[in-house]
Amino acid sequence: MIKVAIVGASGYTGVELARLLHAHPEVEIACVTSRQNVGEELAALFPSLHGAITQVCDDVDVDLVCAKADFIFTALPHRTAMAVVPAFLHAGKRVVDLSADYRLREVSVYEQWYQAHTSPELLAEAVYGLPEIYRDKIAPARLVANPGCYPTSVALALKPLLVEGLVDVSTLVVDAKSGTSGAGRAAKVASLFCEVNEGFKPYGVAGHRHTPEIEQTLGDVAGAAIRLTFTPHLLPVNRGILSTCYAQFTAALSVADLRAIYRNHYEQEFFVRLLPEGVWPNIANVRGSNFCDLNLTLDPRTGKVIVAAAIDNLVKGAAGQAVQNMNLMHGFEERLGLAQLPLFP
Amino acid sequence: MIKVAIVGASGYTGVELARLLHAHPEVEIACVTSRQNVGEELAALFPSLHGAITQVCDDVDVDLVCAKADFIFTALPHRTAMAVVPAFLHAGKRVVDLSADYRLREVSVYEQWYQAHTSPELLAEAVYGLPEIYRDKIAPARLVANPGCYPTSVALALKPLLVEGLVDVSTLVVDAKSGTSGAGRAAKVASLFCEVNEGFKPYGVAGHRHTPEIEQTLGDVAGAAIRLTFTPHLLPVNRGILSTCYAQFTAALSVADLRAIYRNHYEQEFFVRLLPEGVWPNIANVRGSNFCDLNLTLDPRTGKVIVAAAIDNLVKGAAGQAVQNMNLMHGFEERLGLAQLPLFP
Amino acid sequence: MIKVAIVGASGYTGVELARLLHAHPEVEIACVTSRQNVGEELAALFPSLHGAITQVCDDVDVDLVCAKADFIFTALPHRTAMAVVPAFLHAGKRVVDLSADYRLREVSVYEQWYQAHTSPELLAEAVYGLPEIYRDKIAPARLVANPGCYPTSVALALKPLLVEGLVDVSTLVVDAKSGTSGAGRAAKVASLFCEVNEGFKPYGVAGHRHTPEIEQTLGDVAGAAIRLTFTPHLLPVNRGILSTCYAQFTAALSVADLRAIYRNHYEQEFFVRLLPEGVWPNIANVRGSNFCDLNLTLDPRTGKVIVAAAIDNLVKGAAGQAVQNMNLMHGFEERLGLAQLPLFP
Amino acid sequence: MIKVAIVGASGYTGVELARLLHAHPEVEIACVTSRQNVGEELAALFPSLHGAITQVCDDVDVDLVCAKADFIFTALPHRTAMAVVPAFLHAGKRVVDLSADYRLREVSVYEQWYQAHTSPELLAEAVYGLPEIYRDKIAPARLVANPGCYPTSVALALKPLLVEGLVDVSTLVVDAKSGTSGAGRAAKVASLFCEVNEGFKPYGVAGHRHTPEIEQTLGDVAGAAIRLTFTPHLLPVNRGILSTCYAQFTAALSVADLRAIYRNHYEQEFFVRLLPEGVWPNIANVRGSNFCDLNLTLDPRTGKVIVAAAIDNLVKGAAGQAVQNMNLMHGFEERLGLAQLPLFP
Repeated sequence: MIKVAIVGASGYTGVELARLLHAHPEVEIACVTSRQNVGEELAALFPSLHGAITQVCDDVDVDLVCAKADFIFTALPHRTAMAVVPAFLHAGKRVVDLSADYRLREVSVYEQWYQAHTSPELLAEAVYGLPEIYRDKIAPARLVANPGCYPTSVALALKPLLVEGLVDVSTLVVDAKSGTSGAGRAAKVASLFCEVNEGFKPYGVAGHRHTPEIEQTLGDVAGAAIRLTFTPHLLPVNRGILSTCYAQFTAALSVADLRAIYRNHYEQEFFVRLLPEGVWPNIANVRGSNFCDLNLTLDPRTGKVIVAAAIDNLVKGAAGQAVQNMNLMHGFEERLGLAQLPLFP
Repeated sequence: MIKVAIVGASGYTGVELARLLHAHPEVEIACVTSRQNVGEELAALFPSLHGAITQVCDDVDVDLVCAKADFIFTALPHRTAMAVVPAFLHAGKRVVDLSADYRLREVSVYEQWYQAHTSPELLAEAVYGLPEIYRDKIAPARLVANPGCYPTSVALALKPLLVEGLVDVSTLVVDAKSGTSGAGRAAKVASLFCEVNEGFKPYGVAGHRHTPEIEQTLGDVAGAAIRLTFTPHLLPVNRGILSTCYAQFTAALSVADLRAIYRNHYEQEFFVRLLPEGVWPNIANVRGSNFCDLNLTLDPRTGKVIVAAAIDNLVKGAAGQAVQNMNLMHGFEERLGLAQLPLFP
Repeated sequence: MIKVAIVGASGYTGVELARLLHAHPEVEIACVTSRQNVGEELAALFPSLHGAITQVCDDVDVDLVCAKADFIFTALPHRTAMAVVPAFLHAGKRVVDLSADYRLREVSVYEQWYQAHTSPELLAEAVYGLPEIYRDKIAPARLVANPGCYPTSVALALKPLLVEGLVDVSTLVVDAKSGTSGAGRAAKVASLFCEVNEGFKPYGVAGHRHTPEIEQTLGDVAGAAIRLTFTPHLLPVNRGILSTCYAQFTAALSVADLRAIYRNHYEQEFFVRLLPEGVWPNIANVRGSNFCDLNLTLDPRTGKVIVAAAIDNLVKGAAGQAVQNMNLMHGFEERLGLAQLPLFP
Repeated sequence: MIKVAIVGASGYTGVELARLLHAHPEVEIACVTSRQNVGEELAALFPSLHGAITQVCDDVDVDLVCAKADFIFTALPHRTAMAVVPAFLHAGKRVVDLSADYRLREVSVYEQWYQAHTSPELLAEAVYGLPEIYRDKIAPARLVANPGCYPTSVALALKPLLVEGLVDVSTLVVDAKSGTSGAGRAAKVASLFCEVNEGFKPYGVAGHRHTPEIEQTLGDVAGAAIRLTFTPHLLPVNRGILSTCYAQFTAALSVADLRAIYRNHYEQEFFVRLLPEGVWPNIANVRGSNFCDLNLTLDPRTGKVIVAAAIDNLVKGAAGQAVQNMNLMHGFEERLGLAQLPLFP
């Protein structure tokens, strides 16, 4: 039984961590923090937790958190995380950080897309927590940078193509769509129900901050630098990301061959489901679960390969993957606490 | 480990039973049936189950089902259930029937609201499976009639008021609202996305079939015949029922007194959550869980009491309550397999 | 051609006024104001208006507005409206005020439910702008208080019952459900997409500010003071209110008789549609239009009458009714600019 | 005043034609047909029309329709349209056909993607009804093939790029997303509310029937054969299509230059709105209107151009464009009856 803290528990990632950790047989939620809600029960912010999670929100006080918990999830905004993560490590704690602060290895890239970095010395040590690609490095890590939601879906969609060198990487296009929980729980007009419902639009076109993160991982698996066009869109649903990926296919392989390659890459991966031919990923079929559903085909008329990946952005795209990383770091069975089936409908 | 069958697995109640039973530590799903999909994997009908539920649909063949399973959930349409339930009992199986066929004790009432009953001799034996009211009778039962979704929410909302005799029962009004999964998975124009989305309407006004079922249970707890006005409405959401109940309050009690009475009635009930004062039930806060959230107040200007109850119609209103009944019938801990927190957002 | 101003154009009522007035053949939108957006095009706040509404937002400056416009719609928050309406009247303008500030005739009632009133002397003069009840007083009025959305639906639903004295008024219960645009465009966590979508809950139970407004109008038509229980709920849709109204029926009349009474009351009313028997109002069928759809029945088992009314809260519940009032005040045909059919689906 | 018929009025395109034609000052709806609903009021199928459209559905009887109407909209399924269109033409009527039957000029292409064509002799005569590209041919036409919803959005998005030769056409990728009304009003499980709501998925990947239609139009504007990869997705909204288009940009132009080119192409087009820089098209901002909103940018890191277009699939993508074509064919002002602003929110 390990005692964990959720630092920054008042957002959607925080409540999802609470839901998943509550169901984890080897974990006790020992501390939750929320600067704006010190002294309030977390269940007062999220009545869904009523009767089950009785923790009261602490301030983000490093000593207090370290006194209560052995393992720390930081679910803070970018740039707020880096203000406390070094202290947690210094106190001897292991951390899964769900912000973007430790995902990019190059400080110059971070500073180009975000702002100044206050603990760049940790970037080399931090391990990018996508188990299906970096599993061996995660187990011994002190600091795991939990991947972004879009990057998780894109990396899993494209990894076999890039590892095997089956596409012209200069033609990569990713058209991605995310549910609104990805925008967080901050009170903004753009996230109001009436602004999002019955709407659909692109945003961050040719400039979304997940672009360098995606490129870093794809570069690792391809063994060469990658540049891609990435366009996110806002979906009028609570949860789910679907990324549709396109590239010019350069191999003389059939769809069946390609499916076999994907099967080989993922048959040991419990959380990656290559769907039967013709059954395309639907975010509704992964809701609430840690699965990433995949399918693909070749367009014989244009020579393009099309791969689609669906995840729940709050689970495999955030809290679930964080728990998966914790399991690896603690030597628990990787799927412990994460085996629930998706909620459909 | 008990082997269970889901007879009629192709509807939303069927897939929800599969989801919940898959997570139950003492259960193996040994048989699933679907007349229209014999020979197909259940996961082909519901890709959310892909990789986890590998059962192939059998026909609704009593001998076959009885050979494979020890315990049977019938999730068939009304009037189809009664065609097979007697045979399952005859074969020595215990059954939780999720249809309406065995919920009403009086055959005349059944035949007034539905059609002719083909096994009326079982009505006296069948136990109405609302554990918070009929727990003791459920444990030894061979046949449990799993309650309807609306009746579950209304009975839990009103039980303390009626047991304690605090209202004028001639003034009872229940205004209820259900998510669309309550209409089932049949292909009907009225259930199409574009017909339901951004819409809201009453239906079955002054004539919904759950009325006599509600009245039977309320009559039991009140110790007297009850007649009420019940108006269901269709909500543009997948899951959830919220029932708002009104009656003239006849007791000289404060809201605090009344809350204390509700607390007493339900403090031992894990699945009934009386929310803090001012926090009204929201179907979003019970999604995917077996909880029933309650709150209430008095209108000092009119002397009415107002009680609202929220459940997930597919869980506490159907599959979750069925599993709760199975737990009672088998002597398992009542909440086994049902302790997951709601999925919010 | 009259020149109109929309004072407070940055909310959902403001943009709906712009949409409707743009389509009105006798109106020119001569001025729009928004304190927070002075100098910006209204179409920058609402790209739906792009290319059609080119007005730039002015400050809420009485002299400026009066110089530009002859007729003024104030779509400001409660208590902000009363700070400017007297000055517009003093400058000789006629005003339709969409706030609650001039709806209640008794200053004591206003101050009990809202706060101190700064121009109580206008309450006696202001005309409550529900044309189907107060048409004759609206035409000559200088100041029309545009009704609230809930009160409009409830008054139209119940007027015939109360005028004819067919119910026991002590038993009135109104269970109402509103789309989320009713909560306005302010950035609040409770109005975020993920908080509202797939949710449903009551709010303001036994204490909503529309209660005294409903009671005032019902009292007028009944000829006696009315107290009712009114429970609003939040619907996960953009637009629409459905009010389901209950009362003990005291007349010896059939449903057909009652329908005839409603038909008589409303056959001259273009915007009130009594639907055919069995076709219940659905907010989807009035979307974007100024219609109020009605239907009703008697519950023979309990003696209750049930009446349901559906409106678009932004049209008949706000901007459309405001235009209808303007038409009456200017002697235009009452339905001018308001004859568009609902947008379905 | 022309008398029009809506042949096939029971679908979503039919009711939208009724809504728009009802508002058209020069049109009388003289006939509506629906094979399954002969003798019923159209308003019984669509209560949104109650009180305004009193027409009763006729059978699809050519003589009857021709006796009642001068101008005919056929809103029938593919292959059903071609069974009646020739007879309407033979009777001297002019027709806007909203099916796919006359959109493809090459019968072989039609038969490859659809089935056998029974009136191929009309393909040469039929004019593809996209006014912003084929306006001059539409005015004198007897038979106008109203474009598909996806093709309309894609053609308007890409026309300037292809006319000016600014991209490598072998790299064209269109990732499109459609609201559910595009699937029609047929009772299918896949279109049920609970299947679509909170979901999102691709469909028809590398094989959707709109592909050859898009390629035909783009080929016309490019002056060369075009092959593109086109992936549609199903959006959980009632109305709206957003198409995101990608291609390798081959010109030495800035974003400002490119915007100027688009402005030149569309400044005379009332229904095409090039939005301000940074304001991306959102289907919510065209709902209920005949507008096509566009925006674009260049991705400097990859050299791709990205163009997004949003339309209401039932208006500019079907019924609205059909009315626009009728206006052109009759010499009415092109925007007559189509000038309503979008309904937001």
